[in-house]
Amino acid sequence: MAATFFQAVMRSSLRDFEAARARMGANVMPTPLLHLDWSGQRCIRLKAENLQPLGSFKIRCGSNVIGLLDAESARRGLVTVSAGNFAQGLALAANRRGVPVIAHVPEGAPAVKVKKLRSLGVTVVHQSPTEWWRIASTRDTCGSDGTFVHPVCDPSVVHGNGVIALELAEQWPQIDTVVVPFGGGGLATGIAMAFRALGKPVRIVACEVEGSAALSAARLADTPVTIEHQRSFVDGIGSSRVLDEMWPVARALVNDVIVVSVQEVKDALRTIVSRHHMVVEGAGAAALAAAVSARCGGTNVAAILSGGNIDPAVLCSILCESTGEGESA
Amino acid sequence: MAATFFQAVMRSSLRDFEAARARMGANVMPTPLLHLDWSGQRCIRLKAENLQPLGSFKIRCGSNVIGLLDAESARRGLVTVSAGNFAQGLALAANRRGVPVIAHVPEGAPAVKVKKLRSLGVTVVHQSPTEWWRIASTRDTCGSDGTFVHPVCDPSVVHGNGVIALELAEQWPQIDTVVVPFGGGGLATGIAMAFRALGKPVRIVACEVEGSAALSAARLADTPVTIEHQRSFVDGIGSSRVLDEMWPVARALVNDVIVVSVQEVKDALRTIVSRHHMVVEGAGAAALAAAVSARCGGTNVAAILSGGNIDPAVLCSILCESTGEGESA
Repeated sequence: MAATFFQAVMRSSLRDFEAARARMGANVMPTPLLHLDWSGQRCIRLKAENLQPLGSFKIRCGSNVIGLLDAESARRGLVTVSAGNFAQGLALAANRRGVPVIAHVPEGAPAVKVKKLRSLGVTVVHQSPTEWWRIASTRDTCGSDGTFVHPVCDPSVVHGNGVIALELAEQWPQIDTVVVPFGGGGLATGIAMAFRALGKPVRIVACEVEGSAALSAARLADTPVTIEHQRSFVDGIGSSRVLDEMWPVARALVNDVIVVSVQEVKDALRTIVSRHHMVVEGAGAAALAAAVSARCGGTNVAAILSGGNIDPAVLCSILCESTGEGESA
Repeated sequence: MAATFFQAVMRSSLRDFEAARARMGANVMPTPLLHLDWSGQRCIRLKAENLQPLGSFKIRCGSNVIGLLDAESARRGLVTVSAGNFAQGLALAANRRGVPVIAHVPEGAPAVKVKKLRSLGVTVVHQSPTEWWRIASTRDTCGSDGTFVHPVCDPSVVHGNGVIALELAEQWPQIDTVVVPFGGGGLATGIAMAFRALGKPVRIVACEVEGSAALSAARLADTPVTIEHQRSFVDGIGSSRVLDEMWPVARALVNDVIVVSVQEVKDALRTIVSRHHMVVEGAGAAALAAAVSARCGGTNVAAILSGGNIDPAVLCSILCESTGEGESA
């Protein structure tokens, strides 16, 4: 299975990404690329995926998955395993085509996300974290009816996410570096592979947050290892382990990893709110935190603001904290 | 003078707006048009001018004014009268061309705006509110050196603002109504006149906030009247009187006015933050509040989110208030 996913991703052609783009249609908005207002050496721009319907890039891969379904699979429906954002993106696209969706979500998933899934007609199945991770690792849903769609390790997901790179290449031909939040790995590898398919040498920098830097750990060991995952408000990225299927793809396509602190993420979030008038979730702010850090390098750097789904109370508490030095960057 | 401004605006051609668009160059971002996530009858979209550099549409008119300057005027510099946003837009464009700017600002203008003006190289002159209003009404700056640029009653300002309509017509050919926050009137009349120049019958709905609805008062009396202006957090629009020069233009070009309550503006602001992951100032949220109100009408309605410059403490206090019924719209 791992070899199949790896091979499918690595032999992706530009046509795969262009076809994914065509499939997205009106579900997806080509997102703006804002010039970061700062005085640093690098030119940094912000790819505002937080402005997508439902507030994250996941509508891109969801639309591609749904667009690829044959009539029989569409009738039978889909099963996925997602903490929320992917299931939402899938569900929104599925809803428009009348495709039933079952989502296995971990116990403790934010109530607001579960409520949103139900409002989109999704059948929600709660699982213990252990069982949820087992499903994500094995694709064995114990008999849930329908075609299984993996939220990250699926070529159609990778192709949907990679459309962001097609837009970036058009919006900023001089781009040389892209900083991508690393959760399951589907976003970073999709963007990386699309730049390869375009024949455009762009450095792919993954970003993680201290306490949940599973990719950094895997790179150090040159194999996925299980780490102790410390929770923070940055809930959209980070895990206790890189999926075995994703590892060879990430290993081949990601050039660098930057691990930022929770404090740096908060500073970046305040900058985005106060200077660019957008709301981002921790994962999105992490990309900016990595892009402004001395470790980043590059001349023309795009940071992917992957999503905007942050709890309003958390947002307020971060905005009200006194700003650190990083905010004045 | 009034007749001259009126005539200049009313005989604007499509070429004036297209030339303004060409002059803007890289200073200005064509802003995205987001689909409002709501269950109401009308289709509503959000024109996100809050994402512009410096957080407001004012960079559009500022860039057009600067682009039109001859070399001698550019050398002598400009003088304006502005509470902040227009002066900022003008200053950013001026800064890039090395044009000196003097801004007369009212005492009590937010310190953060004054600081930003100074950082852009502007010479700031504080005036009492009475004297400030006298300058805005008479254009007599008591000998400040340079060419006077009025923040709203200037054809090049109107043409710069009208470029928003060119973008809207391309982004949404089916648009039939546009809701525009009404401050000095330069934004609403610019958009209105550009739609006229395009030969596109789009209804122009101005929006005001209760307690500072000077346009509504002028329409009722069919002449500008002075009202008692109640301050609220919605500081970007509303005044105690429509400028005499602006009145005939607004009278000719604005089809309807909707006055919204401060509570409706807060509800709209929460919707924009939580569902669309953007930060807007009160004036921008007011446009959405008017667009979702039963008084609006129309089938395909664009709300102009004019700016995003809101004090973080004010934003937090609004986000933390319990949401009213309007938020569930």
